[in-house]
Amino acid sequence: MADEVKLYAVGGSPFVCRVKIALNLKGIKYENFEEDLDNKSADLLKYNPVHKKIPVLVHNGKSISESLVIVEYVDDVWKGVPILPQDPYEKAVARFWAKFIDDKFIPAIFKVFTSNGDEQAITEACEQLQILENELANKGSKFFGGDNINLVDITADFLAYWLGTIEEATEITLVSKDKYPKITEWADNFVNCQVVKEILPPREHLLAFFKKRFGKA
Amino acid sequence: MADEVKLYAVGGSPFVCRVKIALNLKGIKYENFEEDLDNKSADLLKYNPVHKKIPVLVHNGKSISESLVIVEYVDDVWKGVPILPQDPYEKAVARFWAKFIDDKFIPAIFKVFTSNGDEQAITEACEQLQILENELANKGSKFFGGDNINLVDITADFLAYWLGTIEEATEITLVSKDKYPKITEWADNFVNCQVVKEILPPREHLLAFFKKRFGKA
Repeated sequence: MADEVKLYAVGGSPFVCRVKIALNLKGIKYENFEEDLDNKSADLLKYNPVHKKIPVLVHNGKSISESLVIVEYVDDVWKGVPILPQDPYEKAVARFWAKFIDDKFIPAIFKVFTSNGDEQAITEACEQLQILENELANKGSKFFGGDNINLVDITADFLAYWLGTIEEATEITLVSKDKYPKITEWADNFVNCQVVKEILPPREHLLAFFKKRFGKA
Repeated sequence: MADEVKLYAVGGSPFVCRVKIALNLKGIKYENFEEDLDNKSADLLKYNPVHKKIPVLVHNGKSISESLVIVEYVDDVWKGVPILPQDPYEKAVARFWAKFIDDKFIPAIFKVFTSNGDEQAITEACEQLQILENELANKGSKFFGGDNINLVDITADFLAYWLGTIEEATEITLVSKDKYPKITEWADNFVNCQVVKEILPPREHLLAFFKKRFGKA
C-alpha cells in the first residue's frame, strides 16, 4: 500500500515550510490542505487538539504536530537524503541549534517588530544574530549542516527568507551584508537550494501580509 | 579507553535531574560538578557559552547543553534500557509531549506561583494539567512511556516531585488526588522508581529554596 501523507498547512508559515522542505528533500508526495486560521477545519482541530495549530502531518492516518517533531519524524521514516547527522554528538549539536532558533532567536527577532523597533529589543536581537553569525564563521561551511542543508538550516528558514520581507514591510533593518556577512551568504545559498526554492511562498504575498500585520498597509 | 563523563549541575534543578535519571537508567558513571549559579565556573561558561546554564554534559571532552538534547544524546550513545520508543511514530509522540511540558506546561505552572495565585493563571495551569491527566487516562498505563518510564516521564519530573514542594512552600494547591487522580498515581509511581528515587534532591532542601524564592521564608 502506498503511503498516504497529508499536510495541514498555511503556505506563508515558516514552520510549515520547514516540513515542506523536509518532505521535498526526501522526495515524498503529499496532499496539502490549506487552512484558514480564522476558521480552522474540523480535521485540524481533530488532529492537533492540544495546540490547534499548523503544521500537522498525517501519515497513514496518524497525526504528528510541532514542526521540528515532524521534521525529525520525516527523517526517521524516510531514508535517502539525511536531515539529521548520523553521529550522536553532531546530532545533539544540530538539535541544540534548532532549539536555540525556536526558543531564543525567533522570539528575539519578533520582539523588534512587535515593539516597533524598540532599542533594547534591537540590541538583544543583534546579540542572537551575532551568535548565529559566529556559528557559521566557526563552521566555515556553506550551510549550518556543512556542504548540505540539515535540521539547523531548515529550522532557520525564517532567517533566510521571512526576515527580509518583515524588514521591508516595517522599514526596520536588522541584517546587512556588512554586519552579518556569513548570515547573508548563507541565506542566499539556502533560498537558492532547489528543494527550498520550490516551496517558498511568493515574496509579494508575505510582504503584503506583514505590511498589514505591522500596520504599514 | 573508558568514557569520561562529566555533568555540570545544580542538584535541586528538575532539568539537571532529567539528565541524572537518563544516566542512571543507562548505568553510566559520571563525575558531578556542582555549580554555584551566583558564581558560575569557568568550565560552565566555556562549555555552554550560548546559554551559560546547567545542565551541561561533557562526554570525552565534548559538551552538550539543553536537558532534552542531552537526554536524547544519552539514549543515542548508550544502549540498554531505551529512553525513547524505537517506533518512529511513538518516538514523535514522545517528543511532542516532552515539548509540550517544556513549552506550555512548566511556564503555565510557574505563572501561578510568580503571580501569587492569580485566578487566570490558575485556570490556565489547570487546563494544562487536565491535558496531561487526559493523556494518562487515554494511555491507561502506569507511565507516559507505558509499563516503564520514557522521555515524557523524565521530562515531567518537575510535575512529579517539584510541584508538590512549591505548593507546600506557597500554600497554593493545584494538584489534588480528587481532581487529577491519574497524575497523582503517576507521580507516586514515578518518584518510587529506583532510578529516580536514587537521584532526587532532598525534599526539605527544595522546600527551603522555594519558601525563600516565593517570599514565605
